[in-house]
Amino acid sequence: MSYARQMLDTYPRDFNVDADLLAAAIDALDDCAQACNADTAADLSEQNLAEMVKCIRLCLDCVDVCTATARVIGRQTEYDASLVRPLLESCVAICRSCGDECERHAHMPHCRIGTEACRRCERACRELLDALK
Amino acid sequence: MSYARQMLDTYPRDFNVDADLLAAAIDALDDCAQACNADTAADLSEQNLAEMVKCIRLCLDCVDVCTATARVIGRQTEYDASLVRPLLESCVAICRSCGDECERHAHMPHCRIGTEACRRCERACRELLDALK
Amino acid sequence: MSYARQMLDTYPRDFNVDADLLAAAIDALDDCAQACNADTAADLSEQNLAEMVKCIRLCLDCVDVCTATARVIGRQTEYDASLVRPLLESCVAICRSCGDECERHAHMPHCRIGTEACRRCERACRELLDALK
Amino acid sequence: MSYARQMLDTYPRDFNVDADLLAAAIDALDDCAQACNADTAADLSEQNLAEMVKCIRLCLDCVDVCTATARVIGRQTEYDASLVRPLLESCVAICRSCGDECERHAHMPHCRIGTEACRRCERACRELLDALK
Repeated sequence: MSYARQMLDTYPRDFNVDADLLAAAIDALDDCAQACNADTAADLSEQNLAEMVKCIRLCLDCVDVCTATARVIGRQTEYDASLVRPLLESCVAICRSCGDECERHAHMPHCRIGTEACRRCERACRELLDALK
Repeated sequence: MSYARQMLDTYPRDFNVDADLLAAAIDALDDCAQACNADTAADLSEQNLAEMVKCIRLCLDCVDVCTATARVIGRQTEYDASLVRPLLESCVAICRSCGDECERHAHMPHCRIGTEACRRCERACRELLDALK
Repeated sequence: MSYARQMLDTYPRDFNVDADLLAAAIDALDDCAQACNADTAADLSEQNLAEMVKCIRLCLDCVDVCTATARVIGRQTEYDASLVRPLLESCVAICRSCGDECERHAHMPHCRIGTEACRRCERACRELLDALK
Repeated sequence: MSYARQMLDTYPRDFNVDADLLAAAIDALDDCAQACNADTAADLSEQNLAEMVKCIRLCLDCVDVCTATARVIGRQTEYDASLVRPLLESCVAICRSCGDECERHAHMPHCRIGTEACRRCERACRELLDALK
């Protein structure tokens, strides 16, 4: 069980979001940031660098946005929908773009893993978004 | 002239956003993150901690969201509106909430400075958002 | 198997660090950042706030240092010992201080989890440090 | 006057570091992160990508390490030398490596600006380190 889940189970106050969906989103965001960060470096090690530029750029964006969102929603409590909603929408957008670009390079194992991480994160953010509505 | 502005002036390719608005937003985001990070620590040094909790939470969110957004838009080029728009909207939302809460404590000089940083950042993000539409 | 480990196994080039130790450190750093971030918020929800201030401060430092270190070592390849060594030493230092402070509050379940995350991260960073020497 | 400096001047408690040196370091770290982040993107826009890979990697490290250090020392108070010293040493190391690499490309204006930001940051971190000893 991830620390995110354990922390939600021991949180000293009530919070008004489903703990399963919240923990799944935090974990998927942190994992996606980890995968895309590593994919940036792997892309930079490829021969055909010119083909990898878009993937590198999108991975960098994905790391930044997913890390920030994991931090914000990982401090749960008192969800401010006006903040959390556009933030999760940013994650959905970047995970979709980054996942699509990684998928174009899915013959490279590191981009296949990046695709998987982005797809899972996009799904987890969408499910949390749906629950917040 | 900030490094952000100098970097835009020497960027090797064209980009389709007004450089003045973009540089102003990057600088305001980085400055807001700097101010809110310091305000977190100053709030934690106050006597009446219970009254400062909401301000601390919002400042933490503001630091995370502004830093990530500055990173993403500071790597300019090829604006993906589906990503940048919700990200800037997240900044507008958190800067407004955080600025309002800081303003409630504006008799504390550090919260007065935090208010100013949030207001300026909210304005710069709105202006960039308007230009992207 | 974490994405960090999968990414190391599919990395397009050689790298001169033991993949088990490296993956364990990246995972422990990311997990520690996740736990300490959540602990910050849990601490802010406690009644006896004045007693939690030091823990909050150290958790904030721990999140920042562990996240940055995970990013740097997660982009592996070409280890620059002059950079990676002091960075890992920073992590050892903050994880020890933060773990000690969390342990003082170990009757609170969220601080018990924070202690565990810090101890595991300190150990993983020490082991990677030893391997780099 | 930067927000970092204003915040130090209005901090509610004493702190045992020279405010000029501390503010100069925070500003130089944030500025260096801003410059190196933009330089990453500019490097990725160059024709001779293979020659830029090392510069991109070092700029990414520089952004991560400088941002984390600015956050930690920007929450000043109660300096834990065992944490702050290796962290500042990490900054000195990465700013020197990154500044040297940027200087090799100093015919590109964006790398000239990156060099300047790294040199200034290295100097400010060294001066703060000296004052902490």
